[in-house]
Amino acid sequence: MEDQTSQEQASPEVRKRIQESFDRQGLMRHLGARITRIAPGCVHIALPGRPEVTQQHGYFHAGATSSIADSAGGYAALTLFLEDTEVLTVEYKINLLAPALGDHIEAIGTVLKAGRTLTVCQLEVYGVGDGRRKLVANGQQTLIRVDRPAQ
Amino acid sequence: MEDQTSQEQASPEVRKRIQESFDRQGLMRHLGARITRIAPGCVHIALPGRPEVTQQHGYFHAGATSSIADSAGGYAALTLFLEDTEVLTVEYKINLLAPALGDHIEAIGTVLKAGRTLTVCQLEVYGVGDGRRKLVANGQQTLIRVDRPAQ
Amino acid sequence: MEDQTSQEQASPEVRKRIQESFDRQGLMRHLGARITRIAPGCVHIALPGRPEVTQQHGYFHAGATSSIADSAGGYAALTLFLEDTEVLTVEYKINLLAPALGDHIEAIGTVLKAGRTLTVCQLEVYGVGDGRRKLVANGQQTLIRVDRPAQ
Amino acid sequence: MEDQTSQEQASPEVRKRIQESFDRQGLMRHLGARITRIAPGCVHIALPGRPEVTQQHGYFHAGATSSIADSAGGYAALTLFLEDTEVLTVEYKINLLAPALGDHIEAIGTVLKAGRTLTVCQLEVYGVGDGRRKLVANGQQTLIRVDRPAQ
Repeated sequence: MEDQTSQEQASPEVRKRIQESFDRQGLMRHLGARITRIAPGCVHIALPGRPEVTQQHGYFHAGATSSIADSAGGYAALTLFLEDTEVLTVEYKINLLAPALGDHIEAIGTVLKAGRTLTVCQLEVYGVGDGRRKLVANGQQTLIRVDRPAQ
Repeated sequence: MEDQTSQEQASPEVRKRIQESFDRQGLMRHLGARITRIAPGCVHIALPGRPEVTQQHGYFHAGATSSIADSAGGYAALTLFLEDTEVLTVEYKINLLAPALGDHIEAIGTVLKAGRTLTVCQLEVYGVGDGRRKLVANGQQTLIRVDRPAQ
Repeated sequence: MEDQTSQEQASPEVRKRIQESFDRQGLMRHLGARITRIAPGCVHIALPGRPEVTQQHGYFHAGATSSIADSAGGYAALTLFLEDTEVLTVEYKINLLAPALGDHIEAIGTVLKAGRTLTVCQLEVYGVGDGRRKLVANGQQTLIRVDRPAQ
Repeated sequence: MEDQTSQEQASPEVRKRIQESFDRQGLMRHLGARITRIAPGCVHIALPGRPEVTQQHGYFHAGATSSIADSAGGYAALTLFLEDTEVLTVEYKINLLAPALGDHIEAIGTVLKAGRTLTVCQLEVYGVGDGRRKLVANGQQTLIRVDRPAQ
């Protein structure tokens, strides 16, 4: 998978922690999304195309595109924090640059700045299919660290 | 359903057109969302709480919240245009103000400015339950008018 | 000055504190902006039109529009906090809805949600002149509370 | 000036056209900003630090930071269009990542996607001084092409 960020993977502990959190996100499972990469400060999430994630013209719905982008950014931030930390999305902004088509779309969340309280991530979503890979959405997200809620 | 905007409904023709478009949005059906109000320049969409729309703590996922907000804004814009017009989301920004909890959440899209090419909507999402109604997200969306694609 | 929010003024102490902070904003003075209202959770800032605040067509520059909107939101937040608190802008998003023309523009910052750490404000800017008052920009801003830096 | 984008300059005709438009932006002159690079799809604008561009703590005001970022993005878009085209800012979102300090700040606007009607730019602002160069703001901007207004 071609991209410009670090090729290193996160540690097994971090990957396990993030995968387990992701598995508790009912929406991700319901949409059919899966994590495809967990690196320090960078997480990829893929979403296969199927009628359950479309808008009225058959493209990926902006909400589906945004959902995996939001999760990718949140988990990218989480790779940088300790076990007892959670992050919540404060806000995000996303531009839908092109109709989202393809076998699947892939969101990439990349930490731009990790702070003590706030973290800012860049969000990108690519449409992938027929040997093409096209940027279909681009955004920016602010997250806040919080104490992990009691389980 | 209490709100501060115009109580008038859109015309039957407009409501039918918007409901039919909404019914073609596979994502809305898959999430379990339904339109609850279609007024000129203002559309409400409700989403019942269930495990399929949650994040890792059991709250509504920001992606679910955003998805119905995005659709509500898009259809609010569409109420103001003629039959052969479609709108596409150019971009939106949303703040998640509070954990989204409740029997259901309700998104309200309201046209702030409708232009020849671009329309700007305000997006609000409320968590509703136990007799409470709380603003959980607030955003702003830009849409573009396009020729309706061939069916 | 017509608007829909609370007509009450902030306390003299709050108004003094905010006016003094505003007077230390070199940019506001350099642009020619002045505070026209300080109410709890709501601050207005006016900017007269003159060549020093224009873009290439003679309209108010988006940067001038945004500058007073950002300050209005920041001070709206500050009205709600104690004396030893400062707020910093985390981010904002603004839509330029119409060419900003008029004798002056007026920004209104209104707190949408004040939290322990983060505050979210709505930003509006009106073009005022010739008896007209027109919404020319609309936005949303996130602020963070910080300890007041040593003077 | 180190950066990762194309090192090529725009054509003399394009540079002349953009410099002349910039020179008509009263706000840029009033702030003391100047264009430092005009490349195809990428424009840099520098703003020296001085009391006239500060907020209450002596940092660059978010409005000053945003103003040059907005202009940099607008002119980056304009490099790609023909002589009789203008662009207007539809909206932008900017995160203030760190207090903006330095001898000067430098905004870089880079076209992410140029479309027939809309163009999306990435906005970055760096604080530069004492041999350091630090990202202090990051944003995203949507612009629309319009017919050049009669002069």
